[in-house]
Amino acid sequence: MQTIAETQMMGGTHRVIRHDSTITQCSMDWAIFIPEGGRPDSVLIYLSGLTCTWENAATKAGAQAAAATHNMAIVFPDTSPRGDNVADSPDYWLGQGAGFYLTATVAPWAPHFAMDRYVTEELPALIAATLGIDSTDMPAMGVTGHSMGGHGALTLAMKHPHLFRSVSAFAPISAATESGWGQNVLPAYLGDDNAAHLEHDAAALMATRGWDGDILVDQGLADSFLDEHLKPHLLAKAAEDTGIPLTLRQHPGYDHSYYFVASFMADHVAFHANRLAA
Amino acid sequence: MQTIAETQMMGGTHRVIRHDSTITQCSMDWAIFIPEGGRPDSVLIYLSGLTCTWENAATKAGAQAAAATHNMAIVFPDTSPRGDNVADSPDYWLGQGAGFYLTATVAPWAPHFAMDRYVTEELPALIAATLGIDSTDMPAMGVTGHSMGGHGALTLAMKHPHLFRSVSAFAPISAATESGWGQNVLPAYLGDDNAAHLEHDAAALMATRGWDGDILVDQGLADSFLDEHLKPHLLAKAAEDTGIPLTLRQHPGYDHSYYFVASFMADHVAFHANRLAA
Repeated sequence: MQTIAETQMMGGTHRVIRHDSTITQCSMDWAIFIPEGGRPDSVLIYLSGLTCTWENAATKAGAQAAAATHNMAIVFPDTSPRGDNVADSPDYWLGQGAGFYLTATVAPWAPHFAMDRYVTEELPALIAATLGIDSTDMPAMGVTGHSMGGHGALTLAMKHPHLFRSVSAFAPISAATESGWGQNVLPAYLGDDNAAHLEHDAAALMATRGWDGDILVDQGLADSFLDEHLKPHLLAKAAEDTGIPLTLRQHPGYDHSYYFVASFMADHVAFHANRLAA
Repeated sequence: MQTIAETQMMGGTHRVIRHDSTITQCSMDWAIFIPEGGRPDSVLIYLSGLTCTWENAATKAGAQAAAATHNMAIVFPDTSPRGDNVADSPDYWLGQGAGFYLTATVAPWAPHFAMDRYVTEELPALIAATLGIDSTDMPAMGVTGHSMGGHGALTLAMKHPHLFRSVSAFAPISAATESGWGQNVLPAYLGDDNAAHLEHDAAALMATRGWDGDILVDQGLADSFLDEHLKPHLLAKAAEDTGIPLTLRQHPGYDHSYYFVASFMADHVAFHANRLAA
């Protein structure tokens, strides 16, 4: 690991790290905010949406200000493998910037595209090393995200409850198999295997995996992706059917931008801090 | 005036406005955050730095979150005239994106480059119209800014104390005539007229114009522009010589980025809110 940028921020340290990933088999950048003192009580991973890198949320979400008040570290991974040797597509919803937090089984996306394994298997040890602690001493971790990253947060939490003790999402792709984006990318990355697709559908996972905790989701009602791609009503239906306590807050006039994410970030950080400290 | 984008944010409204400016003689964009209820107690103008548009601070400074807690509107003007008919330069410190909050007297910059008059003569009426009030009912206004915009905030406040009742700055160009940037651009915009240059030097204006109030300035000590372009010690010296109460906070490890601006934005918004409500 190599620190490629570091500055003070909100009393703590903001660091951008580059490393050669064994899982995605390319160079990856990610960022972390370490609160003042360097000994966070909790760690929150923020998964970004389509077209984003670590930088969008790190610069626009107001996450560090909220995290600093809770002695929380926040981690901003990239959204896909990248580089000249990594496959790409002219569509913004497929390829670089669009990893969808799954392990592709179909060429040319396999073997680089494995962002679920990158986040759950490789990143935690990198975080521990960056905090200068043993992996066994890691503070409790939560996961959140926006849009494709909200999909990632929900699906990864339900599949890795030993890793994530809290989960929330901003405008998530609530049911990837019913989403326009999902219907395009799941066959591309995973082939025509409906069972595999459902392993990456947050609403479906509520029934098959469940979640031992509550979930916070915020959604803007002026979000232009709402009806075709996000479909929060499918998540609400699955939560009702399974009895998982979901708080779905729907906000008139709010869109899909980081103005929306920033508006509710402090609530999400507090939600995670409360559950991770318990 | 035409609203080209609008979304809800922090309980209020974020609006981007386009209009044909009579002063800069081109189309100009600016943004405003109007807190919930639409009746702000105060208005803060945030002047941005070199290369920026209204968007940098509106997306990265965390200003709206702080403003919402004080029922304050925040206005984000552009940093220069723009367009194919407006002169430009390959240097980032001159031309489009680099208006320096002055009225150029030298071709090809005159007549478009007149950002001081744009901010002080044209913008207040546009703000009042956007708030749906008479200019005579405008809430008390303050001004702040970053880097070139901090220079703009300090110089415009001292020259227009009837308009601005509070002033602060983030990493300002503290004495434009002693700054590498200033020594390049002041002759380009104003010719070789030293007296005219000093009318755009914040430290010099402390002696010639003064300021009836206190001033808050934050500066990162890991700022790469500190020694050549910003020189806050010259502002501190002028404040000491003139007895103007300047609080200059110098922060080890903080750089020139919006990570720095965002870290201290809540303090600046509170500083203005307290003085504008008085």
